[in-house]
Amino acid sequence: MINLPLGQKIWVPWMRRSIQLALLAEGSTSPNPLVGSIILDSSGSLVGEGFHSGAGNPHAEIEALAQAGKKSVDGTIVVTLEPCCHQGLTPPCTEAIIKAGLKRVVVGMVDPDPRVSGNGISRLKDSGLEVIEGVLSQECEAINREFSFRVRHGRPWGILKWAMSLDGRLGLPNGQSKWITDLPARNSVHQIRSKCDAVIVGGGTVRCDNPLLTSRGKSDIEPLRVIFSRSLNLPKDAKLWDTKIARTIIAYGPEANESFFSDLPDGLEKLRLNTNDPSELLGSLAKKGCNKILWECGPHLATSAIEANCVQELVVFISPKLLGGKSSMSPLNSFGFESISSTYKLQHSFLEQKGEDLCWRLLF
Amino acid sequence: MINLPLGQKIWVPWMRRSIQLALLAEGSTSPNPLVGSIILDSSGSLVGEGFHSGAGNPHAEIEALAQAGKKSVDGTIVVTLEPCCHQGLTPPCTEAIIKAGLKRVVVGMVDPDPRVSGNGISRLKDSGLEVIEGVLSQECEAINREFSFRVRHGRPWGILKWAMSLDGRLGLPNGQSKWITDLPARNSVHQIRSKCDAVIVGGGTVRCDNPLLTSRGKSDIEPLRVIFSRSLNLPKDAKLWDTKIARTIIAYGPEANESFFSDLPDGLEKLRLNTNDPSELLGSLAKKGCNKILWECGPHLATSAIEANCVQELVVFISPKLLGGKSSMSPLNSFGFESISSTYKLQHSFLEQKGEDLCWRLLF
Repeated sequence: MINLPLGQKIWVPWMRRSIQLALLAEGSTSPNPLVGSIILDSSGSLVGEGFHSGAGNPHAEIEALAQAGKKSVDGTIVVTLEPCCHQGLTPPCTEAIIKAGLKRVVVGMVDPDPRVSGNGISRLKDSGLEVIEGVLSQECEAINREFSFRVRHGRPWGILKWAMSLDGRLGLPNGQSKWITDLPARNSVHQIRSKCDAVIVGGGTVRCDNPLLTSRGKSDIEPLRVIFSRSLNLPKDAKLWDTKIARTIIAYGPEANESFFSDLPDGLEKLRLNTNDPSELLGSLAKKGCNKILWECGPHLATSAIEANCVQELVVFISPKLLGGKSSMSPLNSFGFESISSTYKLQHSFLEQKGEDLCWRLLF
Repeated sequence: MINLPLGQKIWVPWMRRSIQLALLAEGSTSPNPLVGSIILDSSGSLVGEGFHSGAGNPHAEIEALAQAGKKSVDGTIVVTLEPCCHQGLTPPCTEAIIKAGLKRVVVGMVDPDPRVSGNGISRLKDSGLEVIEGVLSQECEAINREFSFRVRHGRPWGILKWAMSLDGRLGLPNGQSKWITDLPARNSVHQIRSKCDAVIVGGGTVRCDNPLLTSRGKSDIEPLRVIFSRSLNLPKDAKLWDTKIARTIIAYGPEANESFFSDLPDGLEKLRLNTNDPSELLGSLAKKGCNKILWECGPHLATSAIEANCVQELVVFISPKLLGGKSSMSPLNSFGFESISSTYKLQHSFLEQKGEDLCWRLLF
C-alpha cells in the first residue's frame, strides 16, 4: 500500500494515467523530460489529456489545456512534472494554467531544472491555486531518471553494454566475434539503442568491427553515432561515414592528427576536445541535448569510462558458448585493484533470457 | 497430457510415488542407482513401500516385499527400475518377486547394466508374471541420469563449476579471489558437492587456495576429495591432508616424483595413472563407485577435462562485481578455435539467483 496523506490518494489513478501518457513519447523528448498531464473539470470529469512529444513541441499541460478548452475553468490539472515558469522554446506553462482558470494543480515531482526547481509551484500558489505535491513521486522520478541525472550532473546517464561468452570472452584470439550472441539478443541491443540519444565507440571498434550502430529502424530518430578517437587513426571507409541514415560525430582529443578529415566525405560532424577524458565528451553531448548515451566500446575505453564515473548502468549479454583463449579479449582492462573488497560491486536491476542468451542489467 | 497406452495410465500415480521414495536416498546410493517401489495387494490397496538406501543394503523391491509380507500374493509391484536378475552384493530381486507370489510387475525403465538390461523382465515374463513397461520412463531415467551415464560410458557424469565476476574473471592479477561470490552461492556449492561422489582439483588449486572441498556437513558421506597432479609438486601442509573429515585421493601421472609421499601423513590414498588424461582418472573413479563427480579446478585442468569429454554439465556462478585486469585468471585456456561457429555451445538447463549472484546450469 502506498503511504500517502489522505487528500493525495484520490489523485493516484489520475497521476498513473498521466505517467502512461508521458511514456508514449519514450526515447524522443531529449533533452526534455517525459511529461504527461490530464485535466478534470469542476465536477471531476476527465476533459483533457496531453503529453510532451519532443523538444520544441507544446508541453503536456498545453496539449491537455487545448483539449479541455473552457471546461478547464475551476478544474484540476494533474501533471507528472512541475509546470515550467520560464520562457524556453515554448512559453511558461504556469501562465497558461493560471489564465485557463484552473483552481488546483496536482504535481508528481519537482523539476530539477534550476530555472524551475520549485519556482513553478511557488508561482501557482502565489496566484491562489491549490497545489498538491508528491503524488506518485517515485514513479514520476523513475520515468525521468536520465533527464534528472543530466540536469543534476551536467552529463548524460551512461549505459555500458557488452556481449560475452560464458567464459567471459568478447572474441576469439584471432579477433573473431560474430556472433557470440544470437538474434534475439542482438535485436535487444537495437531496442536499447532506440532509447538512447547517442551511441559511443572507440577507434578500435570502428577498425575491427565496422559497425552500423543504428536501432535498425526501431526508433524514428536514430541515436547520434559518436566515435571517440585519440589519434584519428581511423579507416577511410567505414559504415559510419554514411550519414544518410544517422548522424555521425567524430570526437577527438588534442593530440589527434586533424589532416585525417581531408579524405572524409561531407556530413560528418567534428568535435574537438581539450582532453581524452570521457567526462569531457559526455559534457559536450549533454550540451547537444543527450540525456542517455550507450557505450558500445572495447575494454580500453570501457575501463576509462567506468573510472571517470561515466557509466551508471551496465547491460551484459552472456551467451551459453565457451570460447577459451588466454589472449582472447575480455570486457575490461585493469583497474589496479589489490583486493576483492575494493572491486566495483553493482546492484541487480533486471535479468531476462533473450533466446538462448542471458541479459543482466545492473546499476553502479 | 502424458500419452500412454490406456492400461499404463492407472499406474502413473503409483510410479510417481515410487519415484518420490527413490529420491529419499539421493546422493547416497552410488555406485548403485536410485530405486523406489510400492506393492498393491490383489484388491489394489497399498501394502508395501521401499527404496534403496545404499550399496550393500536391500534393494527397493526387497524393502517393499518385507513390508507387504503375505499380502503380496496375487498383488502388483511397481518399481522405478527393472528388477535385477543377478547375484550382486544382495540376491536377485526377480527371484524374490516370483517367490512372493506377485502376479504383475510395473517397471519404469530398463536397467542399463549389461548384467540386467532386459534379462530381469524376461525372467519375470518367463515365470508367468504380467510385466508392464515404460511407465513414466523419462522421469525414471532422469533421476538416474548419472548412474546410466556411468554404466554406458564407463566414467562418471562430470560437472564443472566455476565462480567468476561479471567481467569473466576468477581472481585479481595478484591471485586474490576470496570471495568473488557471496555466502548463498558458496552454500550452494557445498550443496552441489553433497550430491557428488567426488570433487576433483588440480595441484595449482591446492597450492593457491588450500581448499577443504567438503559439503560442510550437508551430506552424511562427504565426497571423495581427489587431487589430480602431474608432478606431485604439492605443499607439505594442506587442509586436504587431514582425512579425518573426508577421504583424500592423490592421483598422479607417470612422470610424477613419488618421493613426495614420504613426508605426507598416513590415511591419504594414492592413485598412480598411466597417463595425464582426465578420462583415465574418471575411469578409475567409476571403478571406485563414482556416478557423479565435480571438477573444481583451474583453467588448465578444466580445459583438458572439457576436451576429453569429461564434462557433461556446467555450473557457473556469476557475481555482480567488476574485477578487471588483463592478467587476471579466466575460466578456460585456449581450445584453438578459429571461428565462433566452431566453439562449444551449451544447452540451458537452470538459472537462479543465489543472493546477489547468478547461478546458471547448462548441459554440454
